[in-house]
Amino acid sequence: MIHVPSLILDVDKCKKNIRDMALKAKEHKVTFRPHFKTHQSLEIGRWFKEHGVNKITVSSLEMAEYFLPEWKDITVAFPTNILEIERINRLAEKIQLNLLIESAETAKFLIENLTNPVGFFIKIDAGYHRTGVQPKDGNIIDDILKISEVSAKLIFKGFLSHSGHTYKCQNKADVLDIHQRCMNTLVELKEKYKNEYSNLILSLGDTPSCSIAEDFEGIDEIRPGNFVFYDLMQNKIGSNAIDHIAVALACPIVAIHDDRNEIVVYGGGVHFSKERLENEKEGTIYGRIVEKNENSWGDLIPDTVIKSLSQEHGIISVSDDQIKNYSIGDYILALPIHSCMTANLMKRYKTTDGKDILMMNSW
Amino acid sequence: MIHVPSLILDVDKCKKNIRDMALKAKEHKVTFRPHFKTHQSLEIGRWFKEHGVNKITVSSLEMAEYFLPEWKDITVAFPTNILEIERINRLAEKIQLNLLIESAETAKFLIENLTNPVGFFIKIDAGYHRTGVQPKDGNIIDDILKISEVSAKLIFKGFLSHSGHTYKCQNKADVLDIHQRCMNTLVELKEKYKNEYSNLILSLGDTPSCSIAEDFEGIDEIRPGNFVFYDLMQNKIGSNAIDHIAVALACPIVAIHDDRNEIVVYGGGVHFSKERLENEKEGTIYGRIVEKNENSWGDLIPDTVIKSLSQEHGIISVSDDQIKNYSIGDYILALPIHSCMTANLMKRYKTTDGKDILMMNSW
Repeated sequence: MIHVPSLILDVDKCKKNIRDMALKAKEHKVTFRPHFKTHQSLEIGRWFKEHGVNKITVSSLEMAEYFLPEWKDITVAFPTNILEIERINRLAEKIQLNLLIESAETAKFLIENLTNPVGFFIKIDAGYHRTGVQPKDGNIIDDILKISEVSAKLIFKGFLSHSGHTYKCQNKADVLDIHQRCMNTLVELKEKYKNEYSNLILSLGDTPSCSIAEDFEGIDEIRPGNFVFYDLMQNKIGSNAIDHIAVALACPIVAIHDDRNEIVVYGGGVHFSKERLENEKEGTIYGRIVEKNENSWGDLIPDTVIKSLSQEHGIISVSDDQIKNYSIGDYILALPIHSCMTANLMKRYKTTDGKDILMMNSW
Repeated sequence: MIHVPSLILDVDKCKKNIRDMALKAKEHKVTFRPHFKTHQSLEIGRWFKEHGVNKITVSSLEMAEYFLPEWKDITVAFPTNILEIERINRLAEKIQLNLLIESAETAKFLIENLTNPVGFFIKIDAGYHRTGVQPKDGNIIDDILKISEVSAKLIFKGFLSHSGHTYKCQNKADVLDIHQRCMNTLVELKEKYKNEYSNLILSLGDTPSCSIAEDFEGIDEIRPGNFVFYDLMQNKIGSNAIDHIAVALACPIVAIHDDRNEIVVYGGGVHFSKERLENEKEGTIYGRIVEKNENSWGDLIPDTVIKSLSQEHGIISVSDDQIKNYSIGDYILALPIHSCMTANLMKRYKTTDGKDILMMNSW
């Protein structure tokens, strides 16, 4: 029974998303190192093991610590935070920990302060311009490698990139264009350094590229995360169909304003997050409502969107002929704009097969 | 010591914000029933008791349950969610619980299902058009009152409004205009119903109106919440000066890109929330950086803003002459756009006098 806003997880859809990506990785002979920042759950993590996955990606050292009991090879895909050196040393004592480095300063700090060996990737900025070394700055790469060579505790693994700018694409062609440039950048680097580092790995992995592209020539590892649930933002980019989206937020209806075709639900910015999509038709939206069926959900209900969110309130715009279908004490199901942010706020799942699944930092 | 993103609370500023609002309420002879959804903390709640506060507002029944051990008169300023009737009955057994009603259906459900008396306010839509009965719909008000009269468990307290549209104002005059209309609407309703309900209360309470207005004639109770911390959004509206803002997020610096005058910090959408401000000068921003001083912070650093946020990353745009002041392993302090959303994500505070303060659902 739904009493309060609840994040419903369709287990079949989620497991299918995992299986499909695992198969794609096998087909393209790339290592599948999924990013677990989307689901943040030990239990969902186990569903990957059925597909032979034994290496994962996380976005913080805290998250690495959470997954440590069940995962022994973890890449923290975030520029190394040297202020957490104690945590790094604690983790590196127990697992194969891989860090991201993009400056000589960080490399120097690590060789002086590491107590156990860690792997590291040099983060490459292949066009997103958020973090990473630009490929033209070969001297920074060389500096980092030179520093690492004097220490047995800092082991070069390869080059890693994240094309986060695919999230701003409006179509598949643009995603493929970014993906191709990213691959070219990484493959060129491998060419340059492979004689010296024969085992170096090329790692990439945004969900749009991994979902849409069919060419991973020269790439060794992919790290998509969001695909485990997908969402409306990914659907708009072209990564997934609506029926691949594996999470929906159940929100109790608390008021109906039929004079303006709006319903008010218990479900606001502290549940969905304030992520939004801009659409030509509807303007800014914060989610879309789907049809409920016995245990899960079906198609989008046309012209039924979350048009605004306050802290706990969601305002849903409903079409004139549909408003009569809603009543106080019922609940709606809404697909989120950005499932990573919604899951992070909700901190637990209710599965379509009736179980509760906890996440990191569930209370 | 800062190792990870941490929400720093300046206790002096916070206590001054509380004192100032408590004094203002006294001066205007209105009951001060602060909204606790911003800080969500038993400990910070106690700072209000020094000013004689003994009634509070919260935004969910869950939050009422959290504050129940120390507060015995709680208004849940959210349309009653009838799916939580068991929780309502549990709470009403122990405290004076006040609910919001805006439909005859909800009133009917309550008289049939309440096991203990609750107070209720009729939520009035004084122009925000999010929730509430429009004052022209006198028949809905009469219907609700008629239903409540047959039950000793549903006790009419008065009319309550929230002018959330002041959050969209760009200056004080617009806030005062909305506040005046809201007061007029409520006072007219009191005139109409005061013979029948001689003790009826008029309650209003957005932070902009309560901070800026000096006229509360005819109003009985105010319920501001955000003022306890204030933030950049409120500063833009005109509710507070920058030096009234009582929380700042400390974020470790993990990368520096001096070619584009950007620093990358550990502190993203899962810490700040994705609330944003649109400015003519800087475009969209997600926070502003302040000068650090011994235990707290000082002025804004000019031209230093958070220009984008991913899940864990914040990208800070720094002016050309300032970029040399930052180094990896240091941290910045950022004022949030919307302190309610940031606090809700962070779930704990580090005070400027060296303590940790927990919130509801801290892990």
